[in-house]
Amino acid sequence: MPASHAPSRAGVLRAAQKVAAILPPTPLLPLEFGGRTLWCKAECLQPVGAFKIRGGWHRLSDLSAEERRRGVVGVSSGNHAQGVAWAARRLGIAATIVMPADAPQVKLDATRALGAEIVLYDRMTQSREEIASELCAKTGAILVHAFADPWIIEGQGTVGVELDEQMRARAGGSASRIIVPCGGGGLAAGVALACPDASLTLVEPEGWDDVGRSLAAEEILPVAKDAPATACDALQTLSTQPINFAVLKERCSAALWVTPAEVRAAQRLAFSKLHLVVEPGGAAALAAVLVGKVEVDERTAVVLSGGNTDPEAFARVLSTAD
Amino acid sequence: MPASHAPSRAGVLRAAQKVAAILPPTPLLPLEFGGRTLWCKAECLQPVGAFKIRGGWHRLSDLSAEERRRGVVGVSSGNHAQGVAWAARRLGIAATIVMPADAPQVKLDATRALGAEIVLYDRMTQSREEIASELCAKTGAILVHAFADPWIIEGQGTVGVELDEQMRARAGGSASRIIVPCGGGGLAAGVALACPDASLTLVEPEGWDDVGRSLAAEEILPVAKDAPATACDALQTLSTQPINFAVLKERCSAALWVTPAEVRAAQRLAFSKLHLVVEPGGAAALAAVLVGKVEVDERTAVVLSGGNTDPEAFARVLSTAD
Repeated sequence: MPASHAPSRAGVLRAAQKVAAILPPTPLLPLEFGGRTLWCKAECLQPVGAFKIRGGWHRLSDLSAEERRRGVVGVSSGNHAQGVAWAARRLGIAATIVMPADAPQVKLDATRALGAEIVLYDRMTQSREEIASELCAKTGAILVHAFADPWIIEGQGTVGVELDEQMRARAGGSASRIIVPCGGGGLAAGVALACPDASLTLVEPEGWDDVGRSLAAEEILPVAKDAPATACDALQTLSTQPINFAVLKERCSAALWVTPAEVRAAQRLAFSKLHLVVEPGGAAALAAVLVGKVEVDERTAVVLSGGNTDPEAFARVLSTAD
Repeated sequence: MPASHAPSRAGVLRAAQKVAAILPPTPLLPLEFGGRTLWCKAECLQPVGAFKIRGGWHRLSDLSAEERRRGVVGVSSGNHAQGVAWAARRLGIAATIVMPADAPQVKLDATRALGAEIVLYDRMTQSREEIASELCAKTGAILVHAFADPWIIEGQGTVGVELDEQMRARAGGSASRIIVPCGGGGLAAGVALACPDASLTLVEPEGWDDVGRSLAAEEILPVAKDAPATACDALQTLSTQPINFAVLKERCSAALWVTPAEVRAAQRLAFSKLHLVVEPGGAAALAAVLVGKVEVDERTAVVLSGGNTDPEAFARVLSTAD
């Protein structure tokens, strides 16, 4: 493979074959909602608890023998970290992950347990990109970006391929509307490529709406400087990147955002009706449906993108009555 | 169909075809455990949150038109209740469920939401069998027992059929050992019939070990009179019944039991590693593995039988450090 390429639908379909060879499809679970069935793609059931295993596997398994020997460096609050670490362990590749010191403890522990080396940084004062670049320069390792990478985009797009196959088998036709949580836009761009005929809705956490701002401005803008604290660590990206934005601007004219209370309500709904543990960022798309920010038609799917959350944090969500 | 029959492997296989026509298989999720893979059958992901939907569907869909008009009566702390109510709604049958007043609120609410009529009783002072018999005598409704019924046993056995197919696809051979939570013995007897070559391990909650006591005595014995309180409401049966015991005594010489703290540890493990919400009774089999009461070989499966638990109760489990 070339060192880089434009992500494509053909690439997503090739990734889907590779992913299907090692990971069974995650279930598409029906949720009765306002007299309709909302189809929930349970990516929190992946071995690393998030869809990121797809992109990690597609990227790392495409590395040449020479590249594998150099090792990989990833940057992530925890789900991409585990995706890369899982793929690296399976392929015998050394992995170093640059993670924020305030990442959920379960994500730090799980990444370490997969054999990756972790380098911590301070989210507020240090640039993770600089740290990662220095590591790569020093060791010759390959940088595996969490979203601005064509393999990662294509790998995450396999969610859409699976979801669409399941929707056709269960609901008599392709997904008409797909709602995804959006951080940097890796999953969103991948699903956009995978499902060219579906209406695509992106959901960001309140204040971390860089993709929404960028779509409105028709150019890439970062999050506002006073972005509030958010429990959605998985979606906490400062800015989307050109490779993602190029795909998204062709498919979406806007993005939605959800409040912390809306996210908690979606986590509680997934708990009681689906018996799934969904982390805050993973519940953002469901939250948008739940509060009526997006309508459910006859073949609407939401992606529940991850489930890595600390038990104390989840217990607080269950005990909150907002 | 005759009014009753002996449950059989052929009946389980027929039930499996009926179940497969309306319910996709629940996933068999890998859990790394002590250097081995433990395969977890996630029945908490069924539409009613428990495997009981299988037996309910097999029983009710075999009723004649005349029987359907008479309606059905079930007795259950909540999971069988939902299984029967779900099948009844789908088939247009009136369902009345006799439930203990101290059943988890989520189970009462969910059963009502499925359109069933609920009759409450006091677990300590009233006989649920008497109440159900009176209801049937009064209205001519068909009693659908939670476990002492050949259709229910065969329906629950479809867990074993699915699990074994998935094990062969994923692990290169049939399940060698299957560990199931055991209340009255409906699931256990069904899996025994479904998987004649597997070693079968039954797990009961501490003090509610009527099946273990019965296997040791080689005759049916009820739980001891001073049975302690248990969070495993789904496994809280006073005594197994001849139709179940006849199958189980041919396959098992003993049953294991687990403590409340062991059950909580298993719920926390399912939360953090599998991102599943598992109710106490549903986690009993995993608990027995976790504390080393049963060994994991190369193709061992545990059934995570249900996920219907109140949020407050689950939050307490997550916050407990035992």
